[in-house]
Order: sequence, then structure tokens, then C-alpha cells
Amino acid sequence: MRNIHIIVAYRGTHYAGWQRQPNGVTVEEKLREAIHSITGEWTTIYGSGRTDAGVHAHGQSANFHTDASIPPERFALAMNTKLPEDIRVMSSREVPEDFHSRFDARGKRYLYQLYLDKIADPFISDYAWQIERPLDMAAMERAAACFEGIHDFAGFMAAGSAVKDTVRTIHSIEFTKDDKLLTLAFTGNGFLYNMVRIITGTLVAVGLGKIGAGAIPEIIASKRREAAGITAPARGLFLDEVFY
Amino acid sequence: MRNIHIIVAYRGTHYAGWQRQPNGVTVEEKLREAIHSITGEWTTIYGSGRTDAGVHAHGQSANFHTDASIPPERFALAMNTKLPEDIRVMSSREVPEDFHSRFDARGKRYLYQLYLDKIADPFISDYAWQIERPLDMAAMERAAACFEGIHDFAGFMAAGSAVKDTVRTIHSIEFTKDDKLLTLAFTGNGFLYNMVRIITGTLVAVGLGKIGAGAIPEIIASKRREAAGITAPARGLFLDEVFY
Repeated sequence: MRNIHIIVAYRGTHYAGWQRQPNGVTVEEKLREAIHSITGEWTTIYGSGRTDAGVHAHGQSANFHTDASIPPERFALAMNTKLPEDIRVMSSREVPEDFHSRFDARGKRYLYQLYLDKIADPFISDYAWQIERPLDMAAMERAAACFEGIHDFAGFMAAGSAVKDTVRTIHSIEFTKDDKLLTLAFTGNGFLYNMVRIITGTLVAVGLGKIGAGAIPEIIASKRREAAGITAPARGLFLDEVFY
Repeated sequence: MRNIHIIVAYRGTHYAGWQRQPNGVTVEEKLREAIHSITGEWTTIYGSGRTDAGVHAHGQSANFHTDASIPPERFALAMNTKLPEDIRVMSSREVPEDFHSRFDARGKRYLYQLYLDKIADPFISDYAWQIERPLDMAAMERAAACFEGIHDFAGFMAAGSAVKDTVRTIHSIEFTKDDKLLTLAFTGNGFLYNMVRIITGTLVAVGLGKIGAGAIPEIIASKRREAAGITAPARGLFLDEVFY
């Protein structure tokens, strides 16, 4: 039995997220079907984590076990012949039998794209949150710096999440501006459910002057979801890379 | 009666092209419906030219007449509230009564995107023609230079086209490479039906070694459609700008 590690890119627009579920088409199910049609096996796919409906990935990471004799690096091309165009396996390789995409992950990078204009760009609208009013970028960068480091992010987690340990480390939140597109790159050792989207919603609230940058440490310390900003829309979020 | 000039961007993926037709949803029809819902008028929209199903636009140009008292520059925002997300009016302004988007156009720029890799990028696949084998770029650039200038492009027009004067001037074909994305920018005084896609198909045939760059002048002179390359897929083509 071999253990195959794959890197997967997908447009989340038309999927009910990553994880297999009874209602709605998911990325995991499409990958499982692709593996089945080339190996005849119904295997379990271990993803590095879920992504929600509408969330995209440049580099989702997953692994699965197989008895098929296909050379490991050929899985990418073979699976791509069976997958819809909005899901691509970018690479495949054999890994040690005990490698697990989720448990072995040391960190992740997410990107969140904001599009800053009154008029949306139809080529970007599925991939960014459009903000029509001017943002105070300097205030947002000051606020972002307050999130870096080790914090209890209990207030930056979707309600109803069952996770007990809510302490996470954010290594960096980097801003890149390219014309009307503002990209926030979040790198950390792990992220709670909706954490990147809630931090982004909070940073945008700071940019719009609804929350002061100086209030961020207090908002984090309060651990109250209501103190933070809104959950930014799924469409602007990309799982960029998983680190091992 | 005022004459309003609009610049329109659209993703062509889900449309049966620009021009209104009995079967299939078109960009022109969506714009007409948007104008109707804000002015109550069913007006005629004069586009700078058609685009085919799947072809995109950064800067399609069109005009229409209206009796509505809406300030001309407000049409863009008002129409965008009625349009689907994959069509956006980027700007609107009043122009002299006799301005006509098609007859007054002095030239156009089209972009054609090629994606050079064995594995497609799911974020680019609707917007580029994927070429899996290596391309000889130097040969393609030599071939492209042969298309520049004034030529009878009769062989680079879709069969069945009724146009009589097939002489056109291509000012330039510029190559830009950004990682795996090769963009060809065609600027000219006008283009025959499918001309950019057939020239692109011919340049790719040169890049793959199927046609020699040195054979291009002869192929143009032959005026035979069969001598040229295939018609490149619609998805890679963008109407970038119309010049007046």
C-alpha cells in the first residue's frame, strides 16, 4: 500500500467546499471519483483541512493510500484527465506510509484579496471582496501587526466551532497592493474556523474607520466574537500553501 | 435625445457572444435589459463589433440613445446594479449625437493568452489556450513580424464571412511572457471575423514546428484558409480596447 501526497488547486466558486457531504458537490468527492476511475479503488482522502463553499486553493495538500501500480508522479496527470477544469492536481509524489496531510502540517499560508473600487472587475469578482469606500491602509497595517504573535483567538472563530485550544501563532500578515487589488497574506502555525475571514473583516472595519487600530489588542483579549468585525466573504480567500 | 458611450468589461464564458440572437443569452441583451430597467426604454445598442461565445472583453465599446434625464456618467453605476457580476460597465459619458461605436472606430487591440504547461491552472483555464508542448518563441516572433503591416488577410478569415474588402493593417503583434502565461497583443485598424484567432493558431503551429516561420509570407499571399493554422479557442481572446 502506497501513500500518495497531492497538491491541489481549485476554484471554489461552484463547490460546496472541500469536505464530502450529503448535499452539494465538493472538491474532495471529485478527487475521490477521479482516483476511483483510474484505480478502481474508493479511497479516503486526508486533506490538510477544510475549505468552505466559495473558498479557493492554490495549494491545498492531501494524501491517500492506494494499491495501484501507477507511478506516483503520474497520478497528477492521470487524475487531471478525469477532473473538471476548475480542479487541478498540480503535483503528486509518494511519501512515507505514516505521512498525514493534516496532522503533519506545521503551518499554512492563506491569501485574502480585496478589490478597492466602486466598479467591480468581472474577471476578479469571484476572487475578491469589493470595497467601494477608501481604506486607511496605514491604520490597517498597524492593526494587522497586533494580530501577529501568539494569541488566544477565541473571539476570531465562527460560533459553534468545537475546538478547545484556541491559541494560535500568526507569523505574519503581509500587505501587497497591485493597482486596485490589495492582498493580505496570513502565515501561521494553524488557523481556527473562519479565523482569516474574521480577522480580514476586522481589518477592513479598521480601514473604514469603524474600529480604531488601537482597540485591536483589547478586542483580541476580550475573546468575544461580537467585538470583532464581520466575517469577510468566502470568495476572497485562498488556501495558498501548507507547510510541513 | 442623448447619445451615451459606454466601456464594457465582461467574462464571455457563460454567454453566447455579444450580439443579440434568438437562442442563448448575450451580453448585448443583458445591457439592453439593464438600460430598460433604469430608463423604461428599449433602445438599440451599437457595439464596436461582435465577440463570439466565450470571448472576453476588458474594453468593449458601445453607444445608445436615450431620452432619460440620468446624468451620463451615472449610467455606469446604475446599469451595474442591474447587470450580472460577469458584465460591468466601466464608464459612461455623453458623446456627440453622430458618434457611432463601430463606424467611428479607428482601430482595436485584442489580447490572446496562451498558457504554457502540461498542467492547467484552474484560475486561468477559462482565459487561455493551454499548450502542453514547448513552443519555439523566437520562431513565433519571426512569424508574427510577417503579419505586421498592410496585407490582404483573406486566408485568415472564417469561412462564410461576407466581407468583401479583406485588406487590413496590423500595427503590431507584441509578445509578453509572465511565468507560464504568454500574451500576444494585436493592434490594428480592424480585424476580419476570427482573424486574431486564426493568426494565433498559425503562430502556435510555427511554435510547435508544424509550419516554418519562413513560410508565412507565402501563406498570407495564398489567401487560402487551409494554408493557415487552426482557429485558436475563443476562451483565450480578449477585446482589450477600441481606439477612436
